[in-house]
Amino acid sequence: MITTDICVIGAGPVGLFAIFEAGLLKLRCHLVDALPQVGGQLAEIYPKKPIYDIPGYPEVLAQDLIDNLMKQAEPFKPTFTLGERADEIERQDDGSFITTTSDGTKIHSKVICIAGGLGCFEPRKPAIENLEKFEGKGITYMIKDPEIFRDKKVILAGGGDSALDWTIYLADVAKELSLVHRNSSFRGAPDSAQKVLALAEAGKINLLLNSNLTKVNGNGSLQEVSILDKDKNELLMDTDYLVPLFGLSPKLGPLENWGLEIENGALVVNTKDFETNIPGIFAIGDINTYPGKLKLILCGFHEAALMSHGAYKHIFPEKVLNLKYTTVNGVQSF
Amino acid sequence: MITTDICVIGAGPVGLFAIFEAGLLKLRCHLVDALPQVGGQLAEIYPKKPIYDIPGYPEVLAQDLIDNLMKQAEPFKPTFTLGERADEIERQDDGSFITTTSDGTKIHSKVICIAGGLGCFEPRKPAIENLEKFEGKGITYMIKDPEIFRDKKVILAGGGDSALDWTIYLADVAKELSLVHRNSSFRGAPDSAQKVLALAEAGKINLLLNSNLTKVNGNGSLQEVSILDKDKNELLMDTDYLVPLFGLSPKLGPLENWGLEIENGALVVNTKDFETNIPGIFAIGDINTYPGKLKLILCGFHEAALMSHGAYKHIFPEKVLNLKYTTVNGVQSF
Repeated sequence: MITTDICVIGAGPVGLFAIFEAGLLKLRCHLVDALPQVGGQLAEIYPKKPIYDIPGYPEVLAQDLIDNLMKQAEPFKPTFTLGERADEIERQDDGSFITTTSDGTKIHSKVICIAGGLGCFEPRKPAIENLEKFEGKGITYMIKDPEIFRDKKVILAGGGDSALDWTIYLADVAKELSLVHRNSSFRGAPDSAQKVLALAEAGKINLLLNSNLTKVNGNGSLQEVSILDKDKNELLMDTDYLVPLFGLSPKLGPLENWGLEIENGALVVNTKDFETNIPGIFAIGDINTYPGKLKLILCGFHEAALMSHGAYKHIFPEKVLNLKYTTVNGVQSF
Repeated sequence: MITTDICVIGAGPVGLFAIFEAGLLKLRCHLVDALPQVGGQLAEIYPKKPIYDIPGYPEVLAQDLIDNLMKQAEPFKPTFTLGERADEIERQDDGSFITTTSDGTKIHSKVICIAGGLGCFEPRKPAIENLEKFEGKGITYMIKDPEIFRDKKVILAGGGDSALDWTIYLADVAKELSLVHRNSSFRGAPDSAQKVLALAEAGKINLLLNSNLTKVNGNGSLQEVSILDKDKNELLMDTDYLVPLFGLSPKLGPLENWGLEIENGALVVNTKDFETNIPGIFAIGDINTYPGKLKLILCGFHEAALMSHGAYKHIFPEKVLNLKYTTVNGVQSF
């Protein structure tokens, strides 16, 4: 069992900044995120997009902001459980919590801070029968470790940045790589689309445009995928893996069952320390709501700071906390 | 008369970020600050100090943060009245406000946003008789334009960074430059102290350590300063200017008389949009107080964002405001 002071659910920008603010109060954080890397939407959906409304940054690329937040958090030695969804929270008799993830990992913490953004992102799935049968047995919706595809037959599906980027990356990894896309043009970056077309022309990948997945088959694990191609012919393709990359759709997910007060799909908190209706469970960032709430990253940063002070008071109700400034002696003194 | 949407009183980091957030809602800002430059404490007191708790900046020099905030505000064309203190606010019949500065400048605005930090900084003055008689007539406590000292006889007093930095700068500007310090060591940066000692050794300045100002004299304007030197001798020095740089002490100042609710030296605001008890007057940053308040720059940024939305609703009570994201089309689309 992992033990920590604050179990932060969500490793987006706001969750990452919570590490820093909690660290200044000598509270340690463990972060859980369903995505395989830190950064939330910024890293997953628009890593190369410039953001203009981070205070003090006239312009910053989303991934650079995440990298900087990680660097800022580093002195406080955060730990992570990535690629696992926080599924259950159990309040213990002593007021502490045990969080259990989708993979059964357990995290024991004094306080929980939900920094879940728009909720956990669930992959959009193609509407095909028997899909669930092969999930984890050849079908996956997210690539955690591309090495599992080395020297395998792989079919990717989709037309956004994620599909394009992984096609480029896996062209040198997989034994055979196909990209299936229902349309003739891509939604992703023109530069990436260009690269994918070049790979297809060079015969390094098999590109199927105006094509749709129709069936999956196998014996225990996935063996065959049927595709309706641009000429309406049914192709039967042997494969080891099928990876539909149709984007992620945000869902509040399991936390709907945790007894938290929810209003319009968001967790109701106070504005003093962003605690929910359950003492010891805080919520910061886009997932919370209160009068005046704006879904801005910079507001989540503020909420992370006040949450940390609230968490401290929850953990040490007797202690008086004085605000110290990092300008005086830097971060090392904390 | 200057006219604007929001008259922001205080041009520190939080006031500067208000320009950006208001700009996204197409509201224009005019900033007033008693200091001769933007940046508040950061620019005036610790421009070269690293700050560690600005989200996304593992480390940033105070002046660099100010420069970046100015760059971020630039597209929204802010205007400024610097070196003048906001002295009076008059509410007009139509609910708008006229702010009058210490120099008589008048600013007409729909809304007022007080971003006054710890209040206006008033210079600490030496305890000498007749000082007031020569203020503005040879005695000044803040250097707005160093060119007024060109080819003049100047006496600086003090031992902090401000005294050291100006000594180094003015050594090449003034005809004769003296630095009077009551102690034998300096509080300012060791590197600057070293430079000042080197200037004294090279005979470029006249350095009087363990010395104190005792008297000022003149006929209409300042002519002589008396100094008790390290050997307890009374020196009589001819001079055009005396600049005591003994630091700034924060005071709420004139706004104590504006009818605003004050609690422990701070302005009471709500947490929805940081409006004070007077409709149309908002307060953000270190100068306000509410349950959970932390005096952090990053909290002021959040307050600036919510204030801007509150100001918009105050100005356009009928209009519905939808939050737009800068990530979609950048700042130019606003």
